[in-house]
Amino acid sequence: MPDTAMLARLREILGEAGVLTDPDRLAIYLVDQRDLVRGAAPAVLRPSSTEQVMAIMRLASEHRVGIVPQAGNTSYCAGATPDGSGEQFVLSLERLDKVRAVDALDATLSVDAGVILKHAQEAAEAAGLYLPLSLGSEGTCRIGGVIGTNAGGLSVLRYGMTRDLVLGLEVVLPDGTLVNDMRKLRKNNTGYDIRQNFIGAEGTLGVVTGAVLKLIPMPTRRATAWVELAPDVPLPEMLALVRRETSDLVSSFEFITARSLALVAADGGRLKSGSGGVILVELSSSSKHLPIEEVLEGAMGEVVEQGWAEDVIIAQAEAQRAEMWRIRETIPEGEKRFGGSVKHDISVPLGRTVDFLKEGGAAVAAYDPSFELSVYGHVGDGNLHYNILVPPGEDRLAFTDRVTRELAPRLYDIAVGMGGTFSAEHGVGRLKRGLLQHYADPGRYRVLRGLKGLFDPHGVMNPGAMVDPSIGLPD
Amino acid sequence: MPDTAMLARLREILGEAGVLTDPDRLAIYLVDQRDLVRGAAPAVLRPSSTEQVMAIMRLASEHRVGIVPQAGNTSYCAGATPDGSGEQFVLSLERLDKVRAVDALDATLSVDAGVILKHAQEAAEAAGLYLPLSLGSEGTCRIGGVIGTNAGGLSVLRYGMTRDLVLGLEVVLPDGTLVNDMRKLRKNNTGYDIRQNFIGAEGTLGVVTGAVLKLIPMPTRRATAWVELAPDVPLPEMLALVRRETSDLVSSFEFITARSLALVAADGGRLKSGSGGVILVELSSSSKHLPIEEVLEGAMGEVVEQGWAEDVIIAQAEAQRAEMWRIRETIPEGEKRFGGSVKHDISVPLGRTVDFLKEGGAAVAAYDPSFELSVYGHVGDGNLHYNILVPPGEDRLAFTDRVTRELAPRLYDIAVGMGGTFSAEHGVGRLKRGLLQHYADPGRYRVLRGLKGLFDPHGVMNPGAMVDPSIGLPD
Repeated sequence: MPDTAMLARLREILGEAGVLTDPDRLAIYLVDQRDLVRGAAPAVLRPSSTEQVMAIMRLASEHRVGIVPQAGNTSYCAGATPDGSGEQFVLSLERLDKVRAVDALDATLSVDAGVILKHAQEAAEAAGLYLPLSLGSEGTCRIGGVIGTNAGGLSVLRYGMTRDLVLGLEVVLPDGTLVNDMRKLRKNNTGYDIRQNFIGAEGTLGVVTGAVLKLIPMPTRRATAWVELAPDVPLPEMLALVRRETSDLVSSFEFITARSLALVAADGGRLKSGSGGVILVELSSSSKHLPIEEVLEGAMGEVVEQGWAEDVIIAQAEAQRAEMWRIRETIPEGEKRFGGSVKHDISVPLGRTVDFLKEGGAAVAAYDPSFELSVYGHVGDGNLHYNILVPPGEDRLAFTDRVTRELAPRLYDIAVGMGGTFSAEHGVGRLKRGLLQHYADPGRYRVLRGLKGLFDPHGVMNPGAMVDPSIGLPD
Repeated sequence: MPDTAMLARLREILGEAGVLTDPDRLAIYLVDQRDLVRGAAPAVLRPSSTEQVMAIMRLASEHRVGIVPQAGNTSYCAGATPDGSGEQFVLSLERLDKVRAVDALDATLSVDAGVILKHAQEAAEAAGLYLPLSLGSEGTCRIGGVIGTNAGGLSVLRYGMTRDLVLGLEVVLPDGTLVNDMRKLRKNNTGYDIRQNFIGAEGTLGVVTGAVLKLIPMPTRRATAWVELAPDVPLPEMLALVRRETSDLVSSFEFITARSLALVAADGGRLKSGSGGVILVELSSSSKHLPIEEVLEGAMGEVVEQGWAEDVIIAQAEAQRAEMWRIRETIPEGEKRFGGSVKHDISVPLGRTVDFLKEGGAAVAAYDPSFELSVYGHVGDGNLHYNILVPPGEDRLAFTDRVTRELAPRLYDIAVGMGGTFSAEHGVGRLKRGLLQHYADPGRYRVLRGLKGLFDPHGVMNPGAMVDPSIGLPD
């Protein structure tokens, strides 16, 4: 089908407002969040109903046209950016933005996939409940992207990844078939849990159009500590102690190195780093009968007894707690202000975080002793954001390219050698698909390819992301 | 390949001890837990290594011979029983029984799939950690079956289903390919989470041979209450209050009706039912800084204030707590002693449990007002064991058959009409595959069939379970 006929057909399906072709309006959809990849597209499609998504996919399958689903366009690995051919359409979820239902007794939230995460959080709160997904991009990212990337964030330690919070899913398959599995059930052992194939699939197996999310009681009390670490603290032991002595009420256990802290803390700020960096610990509770401050103080007392802390500051007021979190959450912006960073979203088993810090640091120093690391992250999940700052004066893209080619493989080798991974929470997208093939167990990679072929036999679904059909099967 | 040649080849692979053909020894492998289905098999295969499983599956695929994986043989839906043809082999996991590793800092347990759940629990405890999977059959069932059925049990409310506890998996595909995904990671977004396809697949897509399970800090303190319910308590509201006011430290929230209680409580027992039955609540904690009894007392005080309890007994000693749990856990045996029951393992959204009790009760009474119900279960997960006692003097199998044909469809219609399911935790197996096809969303069922075809193109893997290839696709 020639482009003009295709566009005409799409306009019939979606209406004028549903098909953007004006280059000025397209621009923001065609570049990734980090400005690393720029693509092209004949149009951006903006369906406003699941039925319209079904019609788009039927047409795309029939004419073998690539469709790149895009939610909030906040991917760190170019998971939602079309290629440069100008032949792939972007399917934006932004008009599928209705909160369908929030049910306090079922403790569930049903939403369209284009709902902004922040709006989903607010809908839960209005019913007195809590959606325990907290990401830096929550004001921009949308549920479809959160599900497509199995997003993690700041409270995975307590509440799990997105996968752990999805009860039901509505998906349009590449051929336009609707899969309605919008259940609210905690237990449902009736056949393969096919939802799981779409969670974390980055839109390569189908388009998620709706979801039922699990809610929890609203935390009404929080207790937060800023731990200035002594040198050489065995973080896995510290994590195990804090988990045990808070009975897993710990919702965040975040590591911040002195260098990362310096990127955001204003001079004279009262929150400073210990010799070994900082751990930000937060407990949360929904019960008025549970003395959460006492629990935190008890656990922190044991941390001090172990000699792991140079100082512990327990937030005495909401403003102090907010300041602790402002620091943690604005590190990415601090890196950007500095001139950018090359990111390595690694994770290792909980017991190996300190080992990784040591071996990774040695590898970076061996490559170039002048390199500066900004390391921070969800060490409670074994997930470190292991970032190399772009040296002042260097071209960001050229530096990124060099580090990605020459140093990153060494860091990933170290992580994978410890049973870890080259992508903990940001996914594969277009930037890490070679790494996926390189590191995947051959049997597992065969199954990945098999699943892609089963769901998307014509390769129309987010072509080029995650599993690249042009890369051959491993022997 | 003639039987004798096949058996000879299997003996070469597995050794004499690995191939049972003596009818006396076979018998226990050929009948299901509830003595509802009896099958036949030329032999029971007992591999002692993953490599032997690979060799078995290569041979089976080559010769198109059906293999029925069996772990502890405790299925409630005949998920591990061969058909009567005498052509399907049973593959017992019982010799794959090594605990591979327990790591306290990673908080993981790596096991062969034939390890008995109780032994896995003990291995975790020896490292000071806890495997939060607790089932009535834990002394008999094996990890491979627990994973194959995505088992639930007594603490799903707090810790989730088996799916939520599996970090890594080792699987042999029907063609003998090994998939090694034995990760210990909390976060790993590197391609489709293919493990999920095998969890709850009842051995129809491959043979699970090993797993890495997530452990948690060992609960060292428990607080347990026996709540004698007032009439017409809104259980969903009560659950929401207890979850909130214990900050989800509640690990069990079990419902027991007076009739179920009477099946197990000796005369003169001090634990009795309220007018509306009983809720058994348990909180657990690993922290010495958390006053768990106070939290339970606070929450129970609110339950009393609401007028929901006729009495609340808080266990004052371990013996009293053990007695509460003995009652709950021996209800299935009590039903067996009575003469058996016809089980309906339904679940509904959390907010609909009372609605189901009302509508289900009316449906049973309308069918036959003399029928006695034994209803109990994990109401904290929306999961009720909704069982009809076999009337004294009735033939158990004939009664089961009649109720399953005539009354059960009505009960399942009611549950599914509420967004619920006909199998919450026991699975589909051979007994509920017709129900799966009847109730599944057509798009979802197409994907189920597609997955079966992708993984098991020759239909050698637990043939007849879950997705019956002889049942046509829905239109």
